[in-house]
Amino acid sequence: MMLGGKFLTDRIDGCLYEDLDRLKRFRLMDDDFMSKVFDHNTEATQLLLSIILERNDLTVHSVEVQKEFQAVVGHSVKFDVFATDENGKPYDIEIQRADRGASPQRARYNNSVLDTYMLEKGKDYKDLQETYVIFITEKDVLKKGFPIYHIERKILETDELFDDGSHIIFVNGQYNNQDNPIGKLMHDFRCTDAEDMYYGQLADKVKYYKETKGGCNAMCKMMEDMRKEAAEAAAKEAAMEKATETAMNMLKDNISPEKVALYCGLSLEEVEKIKAENNL
Amino acid sequence: MMLGGKFLTDRIDGCLYEDLDRLKRFRLMDDDFMSKVFDHNTEATQLLLSIILERNDLTVHSVEVQKEFQAVVGHSVKFDVFATDENGKPYDIEIQRADRGASPQRARYNNSVLDTYMLEKGKDYKDLQETYVIFITEKDVLKKGFPIYHIERKILETDELFDDGSHIIFVNGQYNNQDNPIGKLMHDFRCTDAEDMYYGQLADKVKYYKETKGGCNAMCKMMEDMRKEAAEAAAKEAAMEKATETAMNMLKDNISPEKVALYCGLSLEEVEKIKAENNL
Repeated sequence: MMLGGKFLTDRIDGCLYEDLDRLKRFRLMDDDFMSKVFDHNTEATQLLLSIILERNDLTVHSVEVQKEFQAVVGHSVKFDVFATDENGKPYDIEIQRADRGASPQRARYNNSVLDTYMLEKGKDYKDLQETYVIFITEKDVLKKGFPIYHIERKILETDELFDDGSHIIFVNGQYNNQDNPIGKLMHDFRCTDAEDMYYGQLADKVKYYKETKGGCNAMCKMMEDMRKEAAEAAAKEAAMEKATETAMNMLKDNISPEKVALYCGLSLEEVEKIKAENNL
Repeated sequence: MMLGGKFLTDRIDGCLYEDLDRLKRFRLMDDDFMSKVFDHNTEATQLLLSIILERNDLTVHSVEVQKEFQAVVGHSVKFDVFATDENGKPYDIEIQRADRGASPQRARYNNSVLDTYMLEKGKDYKDLQETYVIFITEKDVLKKGFPIYHIERKILETDELFDDGSHIIFVNGQYNNQDNPIGKLMHDFRCTDAEDMYYGQLADKVKYYKETKGGCNAMCKMMEDMRKEAAEAAAKEAAMEKATETAMNMLKDNISPEKVALYCGLSLEEVEKIKAENNL
């Protein structure tokens, strides 16, 4: 495979040519790139939240990206950007390119997991902080053309807000009216070139990761690491599948589970499970 | 102290006279009594949920009372009645006499904790079950005279339901129009006498706990246990307070933390903490 006259395994300053090409096309709307740009970037996060929440009194205190929160049972969540403000209020900001990643159930679940981290033992429910779950979606997931959608609990009978302090916000990444801050912000999220961006607080880091040697190296390393991780996971799964298949063949041929375990590098429990599940 | 010619420490069939008197005044609106009546009582719970949710196709599968759910960090919740239906959907039913116990934040928090138990590892968000958090409140907490209030997340810009599967319901225990099922149900929740109740599914167990020897004994034992637990907790707290006070006096008199710990039965860490917190 050739691209611009270079083989795809060619490197420039340690970066794969292919990755540099990919990097050029990255926008803030791509969650991996956005995570890099926002990592510990209180200035960019404060700009983002101030525009989305229409506030000018907000001070972002901390920002972490790809922050994992464990649920009590099973399913954990990883927030693209997790920020807190000067009062300790938490903000989860998610970038979603695929519509299905921005389902109401997911927004609800993120909110719930966040809530369960927010009330210390012995505290009263009135001390439960307000929480914000913000989805920035590439398409207009809620399909009504609004730049932003506010989701709040309401009392249906009275049409009043329930006022429980739990806020979900969807920002429409397709919105293109650049006469207002949300439109400008979403424009910047769609840019591939820092030069075209309105907000310097965002453009600076975008420029760094796309146009400086240090930034490009960091981004390309991230892409290589991600591929490596994916490859390792796939290899592990394939090896396990192969071992299971082999074990089944041997069990069918009446080889003892102990020997099968030894040959296939499986535990005896794993072999017994394969045996039971396949009625061998 | 005399009551009806009997000392309050007098017992009838092992029950304190005072507790029997208290038992007579119990209504389903009292959470301890309600918990007893609904404990593993799928029939009563099914009746309750069918009326509140206006459904006649609901099958309650399991019912536990005073069921504790742990949050990831700190604050756990105890549900008065926790039920599941034939599809595994969870229902939290709370009885609240005090208005402050039925705050929006509490309803939100119960919902969130419940959610974090509902999604198994590897499952998709679309598999997240619907959850119901139902508060039956002695007074009309939301103050608009409706028999029932449905709280749902809505998209404010479009006035559409967000449809995230998270339901909060407030039932007004003051509602007194007995021409409809909710009115009849709330009437029954206010009854002290099983004879006056509309619903046999509720009256049977109420009768058992108020009017049979076995039921009365169980209720009175529960009341004694509760008092004992409360007394023990209070005693423990008082002893700790006394020890702290004594330790402070000794530290002020320059007695070494080691000796203070020895005399007061505190750990050295506890004494050092008292010392630091009080600048001694």
